[in-house]
Amino acid sequence: MKDADRDDDLVSRTRRRFLGQGAALVGGALAGGAAAGTARAERTAPVPNAPPNVPEWMKAPGADVGSELYGTPSRFEKEVVRNLARNLKQYTSASSRAPLQEFDGIITPNGLFYERHHGGIPDIDPAQHRLMVHGLVEIPLLLTMNDIRRFPSESHIYFIECSGNPGFEAMNGRTASDLVGLVSCAEWTGVRLKTVLEEAGLKPDARWVVAEGADAAALTRSIPIEKCLDDALLVYSQNGERLRPQQGYPLRIVLPGFEGNMNVKWLRRLNVTAEPAYSREETSKYTDSMPDGTARQFTFYMEAKSIITRPSGTHRIEKGFNEISGLAWSGHGRITQVEVSVDDGRTWQAAQLQEPVLTRALTRFRFPWTWDGRPTVILSRATDETGYLQPSLAELTAVRGMKSFYHNNAIIPWRITASGEVTNGFVKA
Amino acid sequence: MKDADRDDDLVSRTRRRFLGQGAALVGGALAGGAAAGTARAERTAPVPNAPPNVPEWMKAPGADVGSELYGTPSRFEKEVVRNLARNLKQYTSASSRAPLQEFDGIITPNGLFYERHHGGIPDIDPAQHRLMVHGLVEIPLLLTMNDIRRFPSESHIYFIECSGNPGFEAMNGRTASDLVGLVSCAEWTGVRLKTVLEEAGLKPDARWVVAEGADAAALTRSIPIEKCLDDALLVYSQNGERLRPQQGYPLRIVLPGFEGNMNVKWLRRLNVTAEPAYSREETSKYTDSMPDGTARQFTFYMEAKSIITRPSGTHRIEKGFNEISGLAWSGHGRITQVEVSVDDGRTWQAAQLQEPVLTRALTRFRFPWTWDGRPTVILSRATDETGYLQPSLAELTAVRGMKSFYHNNAIIPWRITASGEVTNGFVKA
Repeated sequence: MKDADRDDDLVSRTRRRFLGQGAALVGGALAGGAAAGTARAERTAPVPNAPPNVPEWMKAPGADVGSELYGTPSRFEKEVVRNLARNLKQYTSASSRAPLQEFDGIITPNGLFYERHHGGIPDIDPAQHRLMVHGLVEIPLLLTMNDIRRFPSESHIYFIECSGNPGFEAMNGRTASDLVGLVSCAEWTGVRLKTVLEEAGLKPDARWVVAEGADAAALTRSIPIEKCLDDALLVYSQNGERLRPQQGYPLRIVLPGFEGNMNVKWLRRLNVTAEPAYSREETSKYTDSMPDGTARQFTFYMEAKSIITRPSGTHRIEKGFNEISGLAWSGHGRITQVEVSVDDGRTWQAAQLQEPVLTRALTRFRFPWTWDGRPTVILSRATDETGYLQPSLAELTAVRGMKSFYHNNAIIPWRITASGEVTNGFVKA
Repeated sequence: MKDADRDDDLVSRTRRRFLGQGAALVGGALAGGAAAGTARAERTAPVPNAPPNVPEWMKAPGADVGSELYGTPSRFEKEVVRNLARNLKQYTSASSRAPLQEFDGIITPNGLFYERHHGGIPDIDPAQHRLMVHGLVEIPLLLTMNDIRRFPSESHIYFIECSGNPGFEAMNGRTASDLVGLVSCAEWTGVRLKTVLEEAGLKPDARWVVAEGADAAALTRSIPIEKCLDDALLVYSQNGERLRPQQGYPLRIVLPGFEGNMNVKWLRRLNVTAEPAYSREETSKYTDSMPDGTARQFTFYMEAKSIITRPSGTHRIEKGFNEISGLAWSGHGRITQVEVSVDDGRTWQAAQLQEPVLTRALTRFRFPWTWDGRPTVILSRATDETGYLQPSLAELTAVRGMKSFYHNNAIIPWRITASGEVTNGFVKA
């Protein structure tokens, strides 16, 4: 029996359900394997059931334990970094995006969490940092980080998302990160804001809390008292360790489901007031210009959204089985359903949601798909526990117009070409 | 009114529930605040309700967005690293421990996940890496990493724990990390091992799967087929990003609840067999010598365990409110209860468990405690969903003897001295 025949025979006997003919499925093929060459070479080697060749990295001891006391990714993953536009006039007030198309699961590793700063990243000594709580309170507080850590703590997995995700230009992006990389998700630990406000004692006319960051922009946002007394957290830890400087070290607010810029980083001041501050970031920015010339202001909640991250722009797929996987989230609570269309929106089918599905956290969805090799467009749309369904771009712009693009949660299309290339479906082919 | 009187007056009016007299509670105290000196200095400054002084880091723009495309911790956290013994003869086969006393929540950041290697850390090129599946299968497979990523995926948060956590010497450790730092928890993404075995097709007499790592030790462990067909995962991602080299890049097994060394890293081979391999790591190591001279072998599951991480050894507490917080876990499923004793085990009270409580994941517990300033010993004990209660050291050694100390899950005592110092309660004061 010739090698080629033998190969075909072996392939026909397999129960292959997920790997196609082209994959490195091998019976009598392993001696030349591991470190060697192509799948074809592997499939014609003669010794069945022998182990693959011993690769170089087994022939001598590897790096010592503790050679990195704080670990870093493999050198083969050095391209997996935050996505930073290379053509900005300045980077003090700018953003870098999380590489969503590289992610698995729902946790964003701290090193890849998206950034958005308005005055650069301050280098804060936590021993010198103070949080002041003042205004309409019975007794003002000036708290050290040690004081803040003495309060009862909580941990929750929540997403944070920039309200401009995606803005106009980003709609032309190539990758999932280009489009909606201004969202990330982590386990946050801190103190309920309510606990600290109760320690200070709210006066009867307390209606807003004006939060100020200790960055050069002194970023300032007004938070309604109802949110402050609900699930708002003063956070000092992210995914188990202290906040990173980019995410507000040593202290930030997390307002589950509220637009990113309200989750004030490097938090130094909470001024309890009767009226909002009408700060720069709630007047000249972060308001939505409507078709009639008015502005939507204080648009706190991020609405339900989803994106297929795999396959997504710049990926290439093969005929046969392809798992479609992506992320869904809503500022209003839990995701209850994600539907996927593999025929440009003509029909929709329910995707599987990975448990645990948590309120105001990213939710991973998956959908098994066998691609027949014909060009198509794939889409996802999320529904949250309020019954709200993620709209199409046409539905969204019919209501909002095109004057501004905060809170853009339109369905995102990915085009699949006959060769399996995946491109942004918003951009004309 | 003198400043001191004024201060006392303000303090008496507050609703302080969590912060003691010594904390930086301030009414007319804020102008000299933030970057200034001691709590006392702050409390005597004269201007009420003014913001704290503007710190240096607000006076000029901070670091640019994207100055770290892969983020790292603040320079003020450089002591928070893996805990490595400094007196070993060699570090090729050794361990470093997670700094549990620094952690919040349940997720271990990838940079601080504990390490245990038997032949150093290999530097594997994922494009060259292969997984061979052979032995008692219908058709052997030789899979590339791309092949493995084409199978349907799942994500789960699981702990992994070394079976020697703590061993004899570690029982004398100073910190929570010294004692049981060989445990960590992450969100893992990969393929069910069952899916890959079904792709190959198991022969009727398949009873074990012998897994081999691509490290210089070729670490080899035999896994019962029942576990392989249950929740065993072939994992390529940890907390959203690719595995780190220390955790098995590019591919490892995760066997939820099974002792750490069976979760074979750098996985290159799965040999399906009728009998276990009786490899070095399941004969000369990772067996428990019993009092009668026999050895317990194939002790897969890690039993229920807990530890108070805050306050814990080397911490110092103050009189008044102190939150007791710690971690509990069980290889047999969910933690159903954690009890805390603040009187050296005479009485026990239920701690709060942070939701979500997940099977075979770390569970964060918290217990509010007001310390009266008297010396005492604080303890925690976990119960899992099988009804199993974590034993005392005396109960454990009565059954197991003292010949070996794998699977030591004894209750861990922390002594509190009159000055508030916290020390290891196993060590005589």
